[in-house]
Amino acid sequence: MTDTLGTKYWSYDDFEPGTEIDLGSHEVTAAEIVEFASQFDPQPMHLSDEAGQASLLGGLAASGWHTSAIFMRMMCDAFLLSSTSQGSPGIEELKWKKPVLAGDVLTGCSTVVAKRELKSRPDLGMVTLRHELRNQRGETVLVLQNPIMFRKRGETHDA
Amino acid sequence: MTDTLGTKYWSYDDFEPGTEIDLGSHEVTAAEIVEFASQFDPQPMHLSDEAGQASLLGGLAASGWHTSAIFMRMMCDAFLLSSTSQGSPGIEELKWKKPVLAGDVLTGCSTVVAKRELKSRPDLGMVTLRHELRNQRGETVLVLQNPIMFRKRGETHDA
Repeated sequence: MTDTLGTKYWSYDDFEPGTEIDLGSHEVTAAEIVEFASQFDPQPMHLSDEAGQASLLGGLAASGWHTSAIFMRMMCDAFLLSSTSQGSPGIEELKWKKPVLAGDVLTGCSTVVAKRELKSRPDLGMVTLRHELRNQRGETVLVLQNPIMFRKRGETHDA
Repeated sequence: MTDTLGTKYWSYDDFEPGTEIDLGSHEVTAAEIVEFASQFDPQPMHLSDEAGQASLLGGLAASGWHTSAIFMRMMCDAFLLSSTSQGSPGIEELKWKKPVLAGDVLTGCSTVVAKRELKSRPDLGMVTLRHELRNQRGETVLVLQNPIMFRKRGETHDA
């Protein structure tokens, strides 16, 4: 479905296995790495370049939870905020495959893996998506798969 | 190993299957729910009580990624910052089992599930931990399992 401004609005009905959605791009700055880590993951390799260099990560590197949160925002902006999403019960797979270093530019893609109706909630369906983020060298840094609930087209939130 | 102030310092050698570590507690405020969501997951149910009430979550609810980040900070403060941690390659299981609502007080526990040496890095070992957060009603809200690399006792970072 497309609104009058041409923005696609995603309902359960719009997702088909194989559908690919571009997640755009995001440059990860040193300042945001340190800000997130200071609040949620204050391990030395996420707080200074010196400690990052001395670690297995090889430089000031984003917390894996920060990379996951950046992915979430990219997915929100790409399609989730323009959809009937009702949230997710969790994550089936989450791999931090390479360090995300200060200055890296991430691009992403979400692919529909499967969809199924919910017997307990006939107004909803579950869509399983597989997501990947890559850096500017084409290396995969994040792989994530999870189910997300969406309302069907024409259903209201309290149907 | 314990330092002169009595703080335990965790190396690979100190983790044994069955070891349980208390993660303390954290009260989740409405302000921090909205702050995190505004940056990383601006879906309506994470931004206002009204939209939360109208959603499946039943009130202003933390993004699942926010709950995961809160868990990470609790784990940092409980033992990770006082350990030889070298980071984690990812998550084996992550379930958001109940909504985390504004005002909820979370408590947590990490349990060692398994440990193994790394052939490729004899100075390191991999410890698999299973983590749980509960709310003030004793309901499990987060279940998470992941492997974390730790240096062995007496090994330096560039051993």
